[in-house]
Amino acid sequence: MKYRNFPMVPRVVFGRSSFNQLNEIIMPKRISSEKPFIFLVDDVFEKNEWLTSRIPLMFNDKVIFISTEEEPKTEQVDALVSQIRSLYNELPSGIIGIGGGSILDLAKAVAIMLNNKGNAEDYQGWDLVHKEAIYHVGIPTISGTGAEVSRTTVLTGPKRKLGINSDHTPFDQVILDPELTKDVPKNQWFYTGMDCYIHCVESLNGSYLNAFSQSYGEKAQELCFEVFLSNGISEEESQDKLMMASWHGGMSIAYSQVGIAHALSYGLSYLLGTKHGIGNCIVFNHLDEYYPEGVKIFKEMKEKHNIELPSGLCANLSDQDFDIMMDVALGLEPLWENALGDDWKNKISREKIRSLYEKM
Amino acid sequence: MKYRNFPMVPRVVFGRSSFNQLNEIIMPKRISSEKPFIFLVDDVFEKNEWLTSRIPLMFNDKVIFISTEEEPKTEQVDALVSQIRSLYNELPSGIIGIGGGSILDLAKAVAIMLNNKGNAEDYQGWDLVHKEAIYHVGIPTISGTGAEVSRTTVLTGPKRKLGINSDHTPFDQVILDPELTKDVPKNQWFYTGMDCYIHCVESLNGSYLNAFSQSYGEKAQELCFEVFLSNGISEEESQDKLMMASWHGGMSIAYSQVGIAHALSYGLSYLLGTKHGIGNCIVFNHLDEYYPEGVKIFKEMKEKHNIELPSGLCANLSDQDFDIMMDVALGLEPLWENALGDDWKNKISREKIRSLYEKM
Repeated sequence: MKYRNFPMVPRVVFGRSSFNQLNEIIMPKRISSEKPFIFLVDDVFEKNEWLTSRIPLMFNDKVIFISTEEEPKTEQVDALVSQIRSLYNELPSGIIGIGGGSILDLAKAVAIMLNNKGNAEDYQGWDLVHKEAIYHVGIPTISGTGAEVSRTTVLTGPKRKLGINSDHTPFDQVILDPELTKDVPKNQWFYTGMDCYIHCVESLNGSYLNAFSQSYGEKAQELCFEVFLSNGISEEESQDKLMMASWHGGMSIAYSQVGIAHALSYGLSYLLGTKHGIGNCIVFNHLDEYYPEGVKIFKEMKEKHNIELPSGLCANLSDQDFDIMMDVALGLEPLWENALGDDWKNKISREKIRSLYEKM
Repeated sequence: MKYRNFPMVPRVVFGRSSFNQLNEIIMPKRISSEKPFIFLVDDVFEKNEWLTSRIPLMFNDKVIFISTEEEPKTEQVDALVSQIRSLYNELPSGIIGIGGGSILDLAKAVAIMLNNKGNAEDYQGWDLVHKEAIYHVGIPTISGTGAEVSRTTVLTGPKRKLGINSDHTPFDQVILDPELTKDVPKNQWFYTGMDCYIHCVESLNGSYLNAFSQSYGEKAQELCFEVFLSNGISEEESQDKLMMASWHGGMSIAYSQVGIAHALSYGLSYLLGTKHGIGNCIVFNHLDEYYPEGVKIFKEMKEKHNIELPSGLCANLSDQDFDIMMDVALGLEPLWENALGDDWKNKISREKIRSLYEKM
């Protein structure tokens, strides 16, 4: 098809404390008492009664707490799928992800892999999934990644960091409850919010853009300005708006692409395990040559919120290390094409990329 | 549920000439050669080869051209359903609506009624539809109504003008091809665009608003300003942006409501058959007391495009006529509550409404 037939999340609830509606929402999706719901939950909530007491467990449902210290991996998906298969004779009624981008991506990937053969790494790429995922619900607890609305699930595999991009990836249901983001630590709030902002800058400045993606990207960017630059906005309003920014930012990718910040950040993440949000910030901070206006405003936001970015990440790397990062980054061809146009290969060199990495 | 679990259109294509992808999109939805696709098409396209030659007819598919001189009626839905049932032994594979709001609303209603018993008027209201609609596709050829994305299908019945609001109403697939709007006559372009703009003003100034609906409403309103107020925007860009304005304007209704303009316009439409777009404009033009900023900008847009609104519609009406219009308008309680708050009954009187109608 010339234009992608974009799959949208078919059901969405938005509202403070809408998390309380989870039971009512999933009840009609319980296939039988033998087919559980599996809740994949960020382990930051393990001792958090306020949240966990509201997870509507029934029958043989199971909560699996997951550390998000590291970016999600294909082998982690495979292990979760094996664990679930070994615990039950039948496929679950559904997978519910409660957490940030890592948990949401794991929930999407596990829902796909429970109904598809082989290993998660076999499906990294575009449109390689042929059987639909089992029912899956996304409940973000931090705003900015866009994972709640996207048709990808980004995973680090043995060979590469690449998403499972498919029409079966998006959630069947999303619950947007901004109240769930109230206890996010400030640095994490900033880095993840900037993930959305950087999405928007890359998408709005890219060659793939059309009016559909532009309208979502512009709105997401405006909401980021309201949240990160305006004064006098209440905390609740700020949480509400950032959750919508993330949603629209994710939608804007429908007919666009991210760009140089994401390409370089994938390299950092692959070699050093740098997490996505902070990695994007570290990279973007040095991209004024490519996104002058976007980087200028980013620095204002960073200043306003007293955020200190780590530095010296690449100080002690070997030539081989740099080569690995450059290979990962340059392998993401659509991102470079979106950022620099058809003849991107003439506009960027390995030396240039290395010099950028050396600043970080 | 406290917050509505909003059904979104699960598949959308956006792009100029994306209409050419219709065959590829509906092919996998053909259940058998005995189960046709029925294309409901605005009869303005009856002699238009450019469009009709691209309708992908196969087997016993059928095109039904429909006049949109009048607003869609419940009896018209029932007649179409009877016609389709009498022509075929089996339910169609799907219904494809190609046209403006009237055609899109008819397509949604026919898809629902083919799979539900009784008459369309039995389902006017909220959540009265229990069996899902057959597969239905919406392809707007004019921008502004939001019918392509909404969970209602507005119909004039024997007793009232009211939508079939249900989770089964939204389209399964929407094709947004801005090129299809290129030959819309100027007045119609303006009135229908203003339908979107007036939606936004009513939604953004209403008491039902939350951050979800606000973000969509604000974006739709901005796009209306770009289309109707800015200079130097190309025709293509203007078509693209207005199609997105309509989409976002429709989405903004998820957690909000329209207001006084729509309430009064429904009265005009019920009694006099005034069409929705122009009716909204005629009413809104006199609502500066309720929406001062919105009406001021509306008048600027009207001026800029040299639009003359009809007047004297209510000059020769009887007391009984006014009563009918006021009953229809006041029956739409959520619209008044959204516009004026919980105690709206103390804030608006029949005398006031009549005095507004008398100006029109």
